[in-house]
Amino acid sequence: MPGAAPDTPAPMNGHESAIPVPRPFDFRKHGHAMVDWIADYLDRVEQFPVQSTVAPGWVRSQLPVHPPEHGEPWERIAADVDRVILPGITHWQSPNFFGYFPANASGPAVLGELLSAGLGVQGMLWSTSPACTELETHVMDWLAGMLGLPAHFQSGGPGGGVIQDTASSATLCALIAARERATGFAGTRDGLQAARGPHLVAYATADAHSSIEKDVRIAGLGAANLRTVPMRADRAMDPAALARMMDEDRAAGRVPFFCVAAVGTTGTHAVDPLPELGPACARHGAWLHVDAAHLGIAALCPEFRAIHAGLEHADSYCVNPHKWMLVNFDCDAFWVRDRAALVQALSVLPEYLRNSATESGKVIDYRDWQVPLGRRFRALKLWFVIRHEGTEGLRALVRRHVALAARLRARIAADPALELVHPTPWSLVCFRARAGDDATAIIQSGVNDGGRAFITHTRVDGRLVLRVSVGAPTVAERHVDALWDLIRGAR
Amino acid sequence: MPGAAPDTPAPMNGHESAIPVPRPFDFRKHGHAMVDWIADYLDRVEQFPVQSTVAPGWVRSQLPVHPPEHGEPWERIAADVDRVILPGITHWQSPNFFGYFPANASGPAVLGELLSAGLGVQGMLWSTSPACTELETHVMDWLAGMLGLPAHFQSGGPGGGVIQDTASSATLCALIAARERATGFAGTRDGLQAARGPHLVAYATADAHSSIEKDVRIAGLGAANLRTVPMRADRAMDPAALARMMDEDRAAGRVPFFCVAAVGTTGTHAVDPLPELGPACARHGAWLHVDAAHLGIAALCPEFRAIHAGLEHADSYCVNPHKWMLVNFDCDAFWVRDRAALVQALSVLPEYLRNSATESGKVIDYRDWQVPLGRRFRALKLWFVIRHEGTEGLRALVRRHVALAARLRARIAADPALELVHPTPWSLVCFRARAGDDATAIIQSGVNDGGRAFITHTRVDGRLVLRVSVGAPTVAERHVDALWDLIRGAR
Repeated sequence: MPGAAPDTPAPMNGHESAIPVPRPFDFRKHGHAMVDWIADYLDRVEQFPVQSTVAPGWVRSQLPVHPPEHGEPWERIAADVDRVILPGITHWQSPNFFGYFPANASGPAVLGELLSAGLGVQGMLWSTSPACTELETHVMDWLAGMLGLPAHFQSGGPGGGVIQDTASSATLCALIAARERATGFAGTRDGLQAARGPHLVAYATADAHSSIEKDVRIAGLGAANLRTVPMRADRAMDPAALARMMDEDRAAGRVPFFCVAAVGTTGTHAVDPLPELGPACARHGAWLHVDAAHLGIAALCPEFRAIHAGLEHADSYCVNPHKWMLVNFDCDAFWVRDRAALVQALSVLPEYLRNSATESGKVIDYRDWQVPLGRRFRALKLWFVIRHEGTEGLRALVRRHVALAARLRARIAADPALELVHPTPWSLVCFRARAGDDATAIIQSGVNDGGRAFITHTRVDGRLVLRVSVGAPTVAERHVDALWDLIRGAR
Repeated sequence: MPGAAPDTPAPMNGHESAIPVPRPFDFRKHGHAMVDWIADYLDRVEQFPVQSTVAPGWVRSQLPVHPPEHGEPWERIAADVDRVILPGITHWQSPNFFGYFPANASGPAVLGELLSAGLGVQGMLWSTSPACTELETHVMDWLAGMLGLPAHFQSGGPGGGVIQDTASSATLCALIAARERATGFAGTRDGLQAARGPHLVAYATADAHSSIEKDVRIAGLGAANLRTVPMRADRAMDPAALARMMDEDRAAGRVPFFCVAAVGTTGTHAVDPLPELGPACARHGAWLHVDAAHLGIAALCPEFRAIHAGLEHADSYCVNPHKWMLVNFDCDAFWVRDRAALVQALSVLPEYLRNSATESGKVIDYRDWQVPLGRRFRALKLWFVIRHEGTEGLRALVRRHVALAARLRARIAADPALELVHPTPWSLVCFRARAGDDATAIIQSGVNDGGRAFITHTRVDGRLVLRVSVGAPTVAERHVDALWDLIRGAR
């Protein structure tokens, strides 16, 4: 009887009686319908042009200028998904999508994302939902084992793993930890402007991912201090060149502090030679970060595990289950050899986050392992996928994509008008027309313009190269064969 | 007939016939069940202890050391959600959760997240899914209007909005843009170590969010160059002190370049006085970033819009629909007055991302507005919530929470054993026991230990203060009254 208690304040104003808050929503009914919509979408995804054909501004032109003052019926909102959104979608889940990288998702992953949203918890501290932290540590240890990563990345020792949104963010965290290790934490304390010591220099090849330069910029190190290490003929980093450049920088009074090696460059999936890069980095105390965002997943299969040769030299490593392991974006798996540098660089503990579990020293607080404070429960989707597929099921996925890529590669190799470019034995096929860039561009248009498939491009030694990235969840022989027909028809 | 074509390579190896890839999954059936599980969870969320009671290590102890080699039945996986995960959850969606900040979610938002996962598209470029970019621009313009933000944040001019994961990341982006504006882009080009010019200095109060120091560290500026600006008696930034410190820094050869003003500090929801801070920043050309992560949502209501007085001085602004607008985490809304500095600082365009839409200059590529490259379709959940609730429905939510906070505040004010600390007219209630910290700590334990409610704490002037953050989606009078009974019983 709140109204009868002597210390009861005035009744609430009338707002809450006028409109229930939140407005009623039949979550079961509309949720079932959304699940069915997604299932239907994935069933019919091949019917759409793979790349959206809308012109700039079309989607906005379909939307009212002002938001609604009062709530709309759900049916009208849901109908707009078909009317406005679907035409503006480039269908990354289509088996005819061969662009960029696979962003392959799966039912169990989508339900993991749904559950994470439904629980709506924060994982910034262990105490804000212990399951969110502990499941993450656990599945990251699982995944390290599944990929055959060095033991120093397991959480039982001084290292450990954490889920980041993307490899860009993982590399930024590695870079910050390396910067602080190299400056004795002067960077976070006094700032780089005050650092009287020698300048820091980072290393990667021209084929390294664009996020590395972006991260170097963000960290205040300057793109000019990111050295472009020459590549060997196979477009992997030349370890002799790295060693020479590091020596020269050292001799000139600079500090080689960070090197990013790619296990699978974005352009051609070249694998930088870790066994030789490791000692070069170690000689200068430089942090070796390995970016295996896409290709690293291949290490699920023992027959491809050679891509990780030399990984015992790495201070940190990242790979994206959201690229090639059926986990929907975002899910980057990032491990460090020594979490202390990372945590010391990123930990700021205000009073309002203090709690007895943190002070006990018995728990991990993942907020100190990443840029943002807040974090959602991303381990659920990784856990669901690993358990539903099993390690063997995920290996089968990799093997299927590799076999499909080999099927296409063999056809291209046999065609006198085409040539493979830096062929690799995995799931990426790079090729061009022997007649030159114009002919190559015509092939890309021929594949993409009709909407029946989608491939992207890069440049290698200044020449246009087409990339066929095989990795959609349901891609099969017929899709690769149809792609080949489009290529052959346009060459 | 692939086998009959003359250029057909050898058949694929046997892997794909042994195991269909991905393994079959009845998405409809299990999806409906997951929707029902979430609906049931939210129906019974009050039954659980609000804060998880598991000990460190319990969750991991329930999980097998090794991942499964073969896929498991979905029923077993789903059952483990109840067995292993649920005991490890601190229930942020409970109407008895009054800790930290609200992370209030709602059915339409959860379905937006589900749809985003189901579509599985990338929004890094306009061309990788035009709807992902255009819907985001559109709803950010909507939201700017709903909050009454200055026109310079609308996308039609040189400014615009973008969805970030968190306010931490938004502030980092603002900081990078400010750093580059102040150095003529020398920071991203040559690095801060090479910057021969005067040192950069940033400003915030001791009550500003911990992410500001973290961001300053990440950007290489050094925590020592983040000045702690004194506060007035109401714990808002003292504008005279800011002006004086900026002048002193300038006189000493340093450059005041960045100031973060809080609209609602984390501790007590103090509002820094933008009308006076703006001119102080302008005099030194310093970038004024306004962090309104939680409280800014109150500006949906005209009667609370005074919190944004002076916002016309701001170079950037962020607020979190994932805190107080029924959108599940993550969804931070971030606007800049001039997107050029941000884009110039963060844009790195490799060949493999080049496309005709980008080159036309007619589209936004949001990858250049954030730290990561990849991005998911977060605008869907914001769109769904705004349309389902309508602006009026969201105002009603704010008003209900404000009224409930007032109800509790009045009771505390009337209790001679308690005192309000820096009372505000919004949804946060701060108080302590007049008898001192020990008595205050006993109240916190009395509320939290039985699991019937959950509140967190901070320190103000060295003294322990309890924070009651009212904002759960379904919180009503009875929950606040039950909390009051717990407080009264423990005081």
